[in-house]
Amino acid sequence: MKAIHVTDERTLELQETDTPILKDGEVLVRVRVAGVNRADLLQAAGHYPPPAGESEILGLECAGVIEDPGTTGRKAGEKVACLLAGGGYAEFVAVPEGQLMPIPEGYSFAEAAAVVEVATTVWSNIGMLTGLEAGQTILIHGGAGGIGTFAIQMAKHVGATVAVTAGSAEKLAACKALGADILINYREEDFAEILKNKCDRILDIMGAKYLPGNVKALATGGHQVTIGLQGGVKGELNIGLLLAKRGTISATALRSRDRADKARIVASTVENIWPLLEDGTITHQIHATLPLSDAQRAHDMLKAGEVTGKVVLLIDA
Amino acid sequence: MKAIHVTDERTLELQETDTPILKDGEVLVRVRVAGVNRADLLQAAGHYPPPAGESEILGLECAGVIEDPGTTGRKAGEKVACLLAGGGYAEFVAVPEGQLMPIPEGYSFAEAAAVVEVATTVWSNIGMLTGLEAGQTILIHGGAGGIGTFAIQMAKHVGATVAVTAGSAEKLAACKALGADILINYREEDFAEILKNKCDRILDIMGAKYLPGNVKALATGGHQVTIGLQGGVKGELNIGLLLAKRGTISATALRSRDRADKARIVASTVENIWPLLEDGTITHQIHATLPLSDAQRAHDMLKAGEVTGKVVLLIDA
Ligand SMILES: NC(=O)c1ccc[n+]([C@@H]2O[C@H](COP(=O)([O-])OP(=O)(O)OC[C@H]3O[C@@H](n4cnc5c(N)ncnc54)[C@H](OP(=O)(O)O)[C@@H]3O)[C@@H](O)[C@H]2O)c1
Ligand SMILES: NC(=O)c1ccc[n+]([C@@H]2O[C@H](COP(=O)([O-])OP(=O)(O)OC[C@H]3O[C@@H](n4cnc5c(N)ncnc54)[C@H](OP(=O)(O)O)[C@@H]3O)[C@@H](O)[C@H]2O)c1
Repeated sequence: MKAIHVTDERTLELQETDTPILKDGEVLVRVRVAGVNRADLLQAAGHYPPPAGESEILGLECAGVIEDPGTTGRKAGEKVACLLAGGGYAEFVAVPEGQLMPIPEGYSFAEAAAVVEVATTVWSNIGMLTGLEAGQTILIHGGAGGIGTFAIQMAKHVGATVAVTAGSAEKLAACKALGADILINYREEDFAEILKNKCDRILDIMGAKYLPGNVKALATGGHQVTIGLQGGVKGELNIGLLLAKRGTISATALRSRDRADKARIVASTVENIWPLLEDGTITHQIHATLPLSDAQRAHDMLKAGEVTGKVVLLIDA
Repeated sequence: MKAIHVTDERTLELQETDTPILKDGEVLVRVRVAGVNRADLLQAAGHYPPPAGESEILGLECAGVIEDPGTTGRKAGEKVACLLAGGGYAEFVAVPEGQLMPIPEGYSFAEAAAVVEVATTVWSNIGMLTGLEAGQTILIHGGAGGIGTFAIQMAKHVGATVAVTAGSAEKLAACKALGADILINYREEDFAEILKNKCDRILDIMGAKYLPGNVKALATGGHQVTIGLQGGVKGELNIGLLLAKRGTISATALRSRDRADKARIVASTVENIWPLLEDGTITHQIHATLPLSDAQRAHDMLKAGEVTGKVVLLIDA
């Protein structure tokens, strides 16, 4: 099969490679569209190796058609969206059955591939972990990103007040169009001062760099979840201030979870989020669709900060 | 009435003062025994002022008899244990009705006064907040202290493996007698190395100083709760390591909560913990009983690290 290979010069090239061999409980999916994630950039740069035993090929989400159901009771020809530990930038990928989702009704392969990672990540953190409720205020860092554009919509649906950070007026306008209430340009304004003691929930992607500001922004009983480390790993925590606020800081990742845990999250996401996709409450945000052979260009766009929402790669283009 | 007064030299003296005037929803309790807490030492030293509107007198827990039920439906003469925002080191204290508990069956006033703070603190953090479960491993720092001696017993009752730190062989022996499985002398051993990646829960009282070690000791999905800041307020957090473990850090305090929140915790503690006191599953740990006029000596004992369990002050001695 054809798949994206990371060269020694850390560029992405389409090459011929072996089709994956199924393990027990996996199905072989013919990929139609793969989603691009920031983690793919890290992996391509050599900083984010796949979990032990998982595909070395990039790609954490896709949509396609079951080619071989293996030992599962699935049917060949079934259309599926897939949460992957790796392997999406390819013609075929092996997927544990628990990580298969139906294509949301009315969704194309591209649209489905664009929501898998963001839906599971946002729901597992904002919904399952922190239990965001109506009337609460949530700060979403990087509101115009793939995660951010989805998180804004989910939080508004719950009935929360949504504050976002983004790096330009255009990106903030995109956040506003999705429902964001408080718009903060992180290049010009101090989010922590503006939101001091106001945030019941924070969805953080900066890690160390924003730790002091996030703790300052937390409200009494507030809960921050860090899912990205774009601002580094080691930071100062004023645990005295956290105690005065009775606050909580969690940090999570989806990819490193075991298959049972992923299956639990996938099932809960389909149950709680798929209906909101199907009735249009939450919309997919595809910024660009490129052929798989242009994977390098897709990465360059993300690196340059040009993207609002998601980029996806067409395999059968 | 007589009450303990903190002099300008920061010593404790029994003096004459005004009996509290009841606000709506409060009862007047004639204190028989007051519990001593480490927070009282902080307050006496001028570092831990009471929440706005609460008594300036020391004392966060007591047991006694309702003298005046005020506007509540309670009866004068009823024996009660009380969670206080302050005021326990005195002959009388005003108590919001939601902070009244029954005296556990078979318990003396002294025994009841010795369990209020530790029971509510341990249950609200280990039980209500982190949901400790059978089979999990919990690290309890300061296992021989007031909080620690109670927490060990509660965790063993749940079916957890219990690791403790303490500062001497004698104190570790006391922890062992209460059920602790893994005994670590913090003056001689590195708890984080011994327990690396092993702790599903950590009950922490050191704050900043133990932050790196606690994160190292956390297991995947682990949850640390800091309730004390004996090792300072600002520390380094490796949020990258926390993310790799999908860990959570909470920090909480009981005293600063509003009355509704305290009432919620008190009710849940009586429901879940009182039966365990009454059937002997969890035992009170009174290290010493002193007259109220000896409050200074009680504080000196705690300061010197001489105490295993709790010290209580007899008002009617
Ligand atoms: N732990 C997990 O399970 C998990 C799962 C999925 C994603 N993630 C992580 O979540 C993050 C977002 O993912 P994504 O797919 O949404 O990536 P993305 O689309 O590339 O978005 C990156 C975002 O970072 C924002 N950003 C950069 N510097 C910032 C700053 N100083 N302050 C605030 N925002 C800043 C960008 O804002 P502008 O474009 O406006 O400058 C952009 O919105 C990434 O770090 C990713 O690795 C984690
Ligand atoms: N946030 C809340 O709601 C809340 C409520 C109650 C208590 N607390 C806090 O919880 C802590 C314990 O309260 P307590 O009533 O149990 O006080 P305590 O009886 O005076 O106990 C203090 C404990 O600290 C231990 N300790 C001192 N240095 C240590 C170190 N380097 N490593 C590990 N342990 C160390 C002592 O161990 P050794 O005696 O063995 O040296 C002792 O067990 C205090 O900080 C208190 O303020 C908080």
